[in-house]
Amino acid sequence: MLRVLGIDPGTATTGWAVIEESSGKIQALAYGHISTEKDRRDEDRLLEISNDIAQIIEKYHPQEAAVESLFFFKNQKTVIQVAQARGTVLLTLERNNVKVSSYTPLQVKQAITGYGKAEKAQVQLMTKNILGLKSVPKPDDTADALAIAVCHIHSRKLSSIKST
Amino acid sequence: MLRVLGIDPGTATTGWAVIEESSGKIQALAYGHISTEKDRRDEDRLLEISNDIAQIIEKYHPQEAAVESLFFFKNQKTVIQVAQARGTVLLTLERNNVKVSSYTPLQVKQAITGYGKAEKAQVQLMTKNILGLKSVPKPDDTADALAIAVCHIHSRKLSSIKST
Repeated sequence: MLRVLGIDPGTATTGWAVIEESSGKIQALAYGHISTEKDRRDEDRLLEISNDIAQIIEKYHPQEAAVESLFFFKNQKTVIQVAQARGTVLLTLERNNVKVSSYTPLQVKQAITGYGKAEKAQVQLMTKNILGLKSVPKPDDTADALAIAVCHIHSRKLSSIKST
Repeated sequence: MLRVLGIDPGTATTGWAVIEESSGKIQALAYGHISTEKDRRDEDRLLEISNDIAQIIEKYHPQEAAVESLFFFKNQKTVIQVAQARGTVLLTLERNNVKVSSYTPLQVKQAITGYGKAEKAQVQLMTKNILGLKSVPKPDDTADALAIAVCHIHSRKLSSIKST
C-alpha cells in the first residue's frame, strides 16, 4: 500500500491530491486546491499554503509526494510566484518527512498518455479514467495534482521493473 | 532601537546580515552566508536554509527583515532556484513573526548611493563606510545582505518623515 500526495504549486492556487495504490488498484482518496487572496502579502500566502499542506499530511499520512517542477514559462512574474510557492511546498514536505519526487509537465504527459505532446484535456481525461472519477475535477490545478500523483505511481513501477 | 535582518536569498548561497540602529547610529552585529551543496536535493537545501535562518532569528532577535526581491533575470534556471529559496526565507520569517519588507536591487542601490545605476562595487563601498567596517565582506551575497538591511533602515526613516 502506497499513499502519494501530488502537488501542483502556485501562490494563487495550489492543487493537491492524495491517491492510494493497493494490490495494483489506484484510487483517489481526496483532492482539492488551496487558494490565497491576491491582495495579501507573499509571506502570508506562503504561510497559508504551508499550513494547509501540513494539515493534509497530518490527515492522510502520505508516504511520498510528487511535485510539478518548473520547466518553461513565458511570464517572468509568474515563474517567480510559482517558484516561491514551490520552495514553500518542498520545505513543508521535507519538514514532515514526506519523500519528494519532481516531475516536469512533459514527464507527466508521457506517464499518463504515453505521448509528451498530449493536450491538457487528454491528460485530464486519462487521469479521470485511471482513477475512475465521474468527471474531471476543477480547477485545472487540482486535475494537474491528480495527474502528477498518478505519474509518480507509474514511474515507481517502471523503475522497479527496470531494476529487477 | 531596531534590529534588522537583511537577506539575499539563493539556493546555493544565501547572504544574511543583522544590523542595529540605536540613537541614529547604525552598526553591524553579525553577518555571513549559508552555503548548500549543489549535489543535494532541493528540499534538503531549502530545509538547511530555513533552519539556519531560524537559528539566526533565535540568536539575534531581529524585529524586522528586509529581503531582496526578484526583478529581472537572464537565466530562467537561476530565477527558479532563487525564487524557491526566497519562498523558503519568507515562510521562515513569517513563522517566526519577523515582519518582512522587500526591496528590488534598484531600490537598494538608490537607498545606499542615491543613484539607481550605481555599480555593485560602489554600493558595497558605501555600505562598508556607513557601517564602519574595515573591508567589504565576502562573498557578494553577504555584502548584498548588509546593503539590503541598511536600505531598509534608510527607507523606514524616509517613510516616517513623509508621514509626519
